[in-house]
Amino acid sequence: MRLGMIGLGRMGANIVRRLMRDGHECVVYDVSPDAVAALAGDGAAGSESIADLAAKLEAPRVVWLMIPAGITGAVVDQVAEVLEPGDIIIDGGNSNYKDDVRRAAKLRERGIHYVDVGTSGGVFGLDRGYCLMVGGPDEAVSVIEPILRTIAPGGGEIPRTPGREGDLAPEELGYLHCGPSGAGHFVKMVHNGIEYGIMASLAEGLNILDNADAGIRESEHSAEVAPLEEPEFYQFTIDTPKVAELWRRGSVISSWLLDLTAAALDSNPTLDGLAGRVSDSGEGRWTIKAAVDVGVPVPVLAASLFERFASRGEDHYANQLLSAMRLQFGGHQELPAGDVLEAGSRKAESA
Amino acid sequence: MRLGMIGLGRMGANIVRRLMRDGHECVVYDVSPDAVAALAGDGAAGSESIADLAAKLEAPRVVWLMIPAGITGAVVDQVAEVLEPGDIIIDGGNSNYKDDVRRAAKLRERGIHYVDVGTSGGVFGLDRGYCLMVGGPDEAVSVIEPILRTIAPGGGEIPRTPGREGDLAPEELGYLHCGPSGAGHFVKMVHNGIEYGIMASLAEGLNILDNADAGIRESEHSAEVAPLEEPEFYQFTIDTPKVAELWRRGSVISSWLLDLTAAALDSNPTLDGLAGRVSDSGEGRWTIKAAVDVGVPVPVLAASLFERFASRGEDHYANQLLSAMRLQFGGHQELPAGDVLEAGSRKAESA
Amino acid sequence: MRLGMIGLGRMGANIVRRLMRDGHECVVYDVSPDAVAALAGDGAAGSESIADLAAKLEAPRVVWLMIPAGITGAVVDQVAEVLEPGDIIIDGGNSNYKDDVRRAAKLRERGIHYVDVGTSGGVFGLDRGYCLMVGGPDEAVSVIEPILRTIAPGGGEIPRTPGREGDLAPEELGYLHCGPSGAGHFVKMVHNGIEYGIMASLAEGLNILDNADAGIRESEHSAEVAPLEEPEFYQFTIDTPKVAELWRRGSVISSWLLDLTAAALDSNPTLDGLAGRVSDSGEGRWTIKAAVDVGVPVPVLAASLFERFASRGEDHYANQLLSAMRLQFGGHQELPAGDVLEAGSRKAESA
Amino acid sequence: MRLGMIGLGRMGANIVRRLMRDGHECVVYDVSPDAVAALAGDGAAGSESIADLAAKLEAPRVVWLMIPAGITGAVVDQVAEVLEPGDIIIDGGNSNYKDDVRRAAKLRERGIHYVDVGTSGGVFGLDRGYCLMVGGPDEAVSVIEPILRTIAPGGGEIPRTPGREGDLAPEELGYLHCGPSGAGHFVKMVHNGIEYGIMASLAEGLNILDNADAGIRESEHSAEVAPLEEPEFYQFTIDTPKVAELWRRGSVISSWLLDLTAAALDSNPTLDGLAGRVSDSGEGRWTIKAAVDVGVPVPVLAASLFERFASRGEDHYANQLLSAMRLQFGGHQELPAGDVLEAGSRKAESA
Repeated sequence: MRLGMIGLGRMGANIVRRLMRDGHECVVYDVSPDAVAALAGDGAAGSESIADLAAKLEAPRVVWLMIPAGITGAVVDQVAEVLEPGDIIIDGGNSNYKDDVRRAAKLRERGIHYVDVGTSGGVFGLDRGYCLMVGGPDEAVSVIEPILRTIAPGGGEIPRTPGREGDLAPEELGYLHCGPSGAGHFVKMVHNGIEYGIMASLAEGLNILDNADAGIRESEHSAEVAPLEEPEFYQFTIDTPKVAELWRRGSVISSWLLDLTAAALDSNPTLDGLAGRVSDSGEGRWTIKAAVDVGVPVPVLAASLFERFASRGEDHYANQLLSAMRLQFGGHQELPAGDVLEAGSRKAESA
Repeated sequence: MRLGMIGLGRMGANIVRRLMRDGHECVVYDVSPDAVAALAGDGAAGSESIADLAAKLEAPRVVWLMIPAGITGAVVDQVAEVLEPGDIIIDGGNSNYKDDVRRAAKLRERGIHYVDVGTSGGVFGLDRGYCLMVGGPDEAVSVIEPILRTIAPGGGEIPRTPGREGDLAPEELGYLHCGPSGAGHFVKMVHNGIEYGIMASLAEGLNILDNADAGIRESEHSAEVAPLEEPEFYQFTIDTPKVAELWRRGSVISSWLLDLTAAALDSNPTLDGLAGRVSDSGEGRWTIKAAVDVGVPVPVLAASLFERFASRGEDHYANQLLSAMRLQFGGHQELPAGDVLEAGSRKAESA
Repeated sequence: MRLGMIGLGRMGANIVRRLMRDGHECVVYDVSPDAVAALAGDGAAGSESIADLAAKLEAPRVVWLMIPAGITGAVVDQVAEVLEPGDIIIDGGNSNYKDDVRRAAKLRERGIHYVDVGTSGGVFGLDRGYCLMVGGPDEAVSVIEPILRTIAPGGGEIPRTPGREGDLAPEELGYLHCGPSGAGHFVKMVHNGIEYGIMASLAEGLNILDNADAGIRESEHSAEVAPLEEPEFYQFTIDTPKVAELWRRGSVISSWLLDLTAAALDSNPTLDGLAGRVSDSGEGRWTIKAAVDVGVPVPVLAASLFERFASRGEDHYANQLLSAMRLQFGGHQELPAGDVLEAGSRKAESA
Repeated sequence: MRLGMIGLGRMGANIVRRLMRDGHECVVYDVSPDAVAALAGDGAAGSESIADLAAKLEAPRVVWLMIPAGITGAVVDQVAEVLEPGDIIIDGGNSNYKDDVRRAAKLRERGIHYVDVGTSGGVFGLDRGYCLMVGGPDEAVSVIEPILRTIAPGGGEIPRTPGREGDLAPEELGYLHCGPSGAGHFVKMVHNGIEYGIMASLAEGLNILDNADAGIRESEHSAEVAPLEEPEFYQFTIDTPKVAELWRRGSVISSWLLDLTAAALDSNPTLDGLAGRVSDSGEGRWTIKAAVDVGVPVPVLAASLFERFASRGEDHYANQLLSAMRLQFGGHQELPAGDVLEAGSRKAESA
């Protein structure tokens, strides 16, 4: 079928390429004429404006937006201007699902369908396919099903879940109509919340392994914070890059994020150049707020988000206060600054 | 090579079978003569006692224990009685690594080698192979490498980590000599700690999805705890079994534990018969204690352990105290008991 | 000075009484004529409607609302109808500070001042005074300062903070102008978030003490979940009511919430009749959402909120999923239901 | 009565002074002759060695140790050498209760009583009295009750818990016999665990207040991490020192730790010179390990400990790994280093 794509960044361009490979026709637009030209060279129909893009589609027009969440609202408005009742706008970006709910209601008044598609797959999606979480009205989702089927990974080589039989269901092909407008980004949001938790689990565990030599370091440096109670049990110098690779094979925690961890550690075993200031995007935050709204306890997911905040120093004032209190009640002085660096060099020396 | 196996439960028996398939000879013993007979029928050499088993091996004897952690210490002592300097005892069970450190030191005095092997793979290991985390002296580990290689999954179909070249390293075949005695179970312990975190991440996230209909339920039941602030944003009835299946395809959180979750939800979509009283084994606890010992922050892993404690009602007294305090300072009465059941039936009705 | 009070529940009525004791004149209104009559009997001027109340005040009129947060918006609108530019509406309830920001902006257009007053003190406020956190424009707050001063506790017997000299500052008298409209409820919100954390700290700690006899119980019941590793260290039968009382005297954690805990435990040492289903009000939730918004890590405060959710069974689906996963990968069966009750009766028997 | 005190640091010396004020006789010893001389000048009987100290006491001798936990074991052995059956050793320091259990058993064989006394009160104890948590055999505790009564705060001006009548119970006077040897330090350990939680609650909450101006800073600095969604709600510049002072008056969270926080902020409102590297002593760690042992969920207390670990950079490797994973799956680059400092100077500029 024919699709209009607005936004030709890495994700948008790759989705267009994946669609064209499978025989779909794509009309493309981007604020960068170069981006348009590049895809036109690959077989897409270029366009010079949103109106031009719309003119090159036929009713019911299907326009996919793959643009930063910050400008999605404005672009949806512009696109709606040049569409007609029965047409479909797809937001494949990282919008807050609440915005989907609001936008869908507004567009519904004009007879335009709004479909939100949460898209997971990162830089590997062109070949691996994208996992698609879809929200929107039934009639619109059924119209776009052919393109969802192409963008999704398909059954592939993943072993079928025991007990499932017959034709592959959509969720087995990698796309799912999750519910009305907003449901797609809601499911994607929670997916990312889970991702934070899994990443943190791996990172915390490997951090323990990296410190399994505390008893060795302890014996060298006597003036530590809290003396290690049983240094004889922390005498291990663990090769974490090898352990990450090992766990990919037959272990209960094998996972794609572990694959990435193993790859990262293999290419940069000492993690040189990484300051450990971990960014977070909106989804992790929205997940916690949604859980709080509906009263679901998420201590693990929340802790994984807060670790990221703290990694960027956002715990600084709280920590100063703790030191200030300790100074008050016990006359306890702070450790001298610079111990972290020392700890780092200490490890480096013994490595 | 030839190996003695003590303990023919599911894990022990399957490891013997996997070894024999690959040409190794196994002498087996178990307190249950039936278990011995069953494996003898599959080609193993049965034995009637630990001494008998030892007599059927040749120096350096290699004896693998696959028995409950609670009796490992006693059995290690019995085995050591019938072994000679240069022989090797392997503990493949779930011992605390601290016990490994202690036992290895004791056996070292008698010239007997002690090797601890953390084994992951669950009920799927016979075919899939077991991920092996090994601790012990170099000379003993090199002796047993042929059997480790057989028990491990091997390279299999798992894509190689980008950048790795040449012959497959041991960790790529699924086994790794992690360090001296205790290191194997230490790494396995942390592996299980991570497992708790990943499981909790998935469970918490899916719980949010399961409650994404809070705004619908809210409108039906007006006397809720804390009124939902924006019910219009929680109008989704998400099919969590389908979502779990979907995420197996191309998403960032695809993992073996997600595969299991999808299988569990496909076979029992409403989780009938599960009370949600989650057990924990020693490894999750030891992980937290080790992290506390070495001063590594593990808020995510700890929260995942504490959730399990709470699932079994171990938070009861604390919660009573909270209600008692609220009663004191504000005259706040508790909610009537039974609301959980109501919530359950409510969901059932609307499903 | 003269004040109109709308809402004569426990808090509103007690504030009126405290004001009149100090010589202020109060015009009062409530939807319940009985509540109005009761306070009229104590010396207040009753009124029959909001309009009547307004008519009995003189410009600039000051109207204090002490009503449930759910109806505050509607009542503010009604009051604004009968006020004039320069008049002042005070919201002393538990509104979300975001609503304050919105309402203040709306009223500002009509020249009416809006002041939000976060009020802490519970049932003890009539005698002890209320801690007042105030948000609003300078000119309005200065008008109402006399009544703030009366409602607040004053300097009282609380020792002055070392280093402070001269006249007591407002914050030493128990009220503080924290910033523009919304700032009062914002500070009150965070206050309550902290309260959750302190309550949870006390409850968790006392729960450990209550289980310090695990080693005694262990020896009686062999088939426990995870065997206690060193039962010899958990042989204490701690009298938690006495410990709570003890800590009130000279310990670092002495606090009003500990006072309440001691009182609760003294009056009901076995916490009979408390199911441990802990409610939460909006402030605890808003605190976490605000922290997430501004990127401040609050693992402790969040954990204390999530404990309450879990105490009401909102972790049920997540826990079922964990059991379902365990069943999949290891064939692990759940513990039989009813163990909690058994645990309870066990303790009761041994007590 | 007569008491021997070994260890004349701040705590030991102050306890001796408090005892002598109340008429008790003290024989004192310290490795520093100057410390002995100083107290001798105040009326104590000095001694030149542990044997000398023992010789100056009469059976049953009572010797109180107030020394660092690290050397307590060795000194207990030395003291035991010069004591006789029926004599009493008191450990008033910060020992791990497990060491108490072990030491008491060893001394019991020689007929010597061992009493552990957890002591809370910090630098204020001389005047305020110390809260005493006592473990040991009944007959020994009853012997030393007169000195416990003197060291404890007594009833003082703290309002009596409603419902309590008649003579003040020991716990109302500030000391309590909690159980057999070890019980005192066990209760003290949990006390400190709670202290960590309360301190963290206050620090986290005040950190939110300190960042309530995020919407103002946001408008000045456009290239932030995750854009603030509703900057209009974070326009407050809160004076946290004043708020801490305010909450001391009539609020639900009034507490001694809040008093200290207010004092700290009043004397150093910008917390100059504090790097926020928060130390932890053994008790906080032991509390978490004890909770894990007995299966009690303590997410709040654990989070408060882990925050301290993270404040000292012990989360560094984990954070590097998170950044490494993000780089792998999305090509996400880290934020430039130095943003924390910028954030600090930014706040300073706007202050």
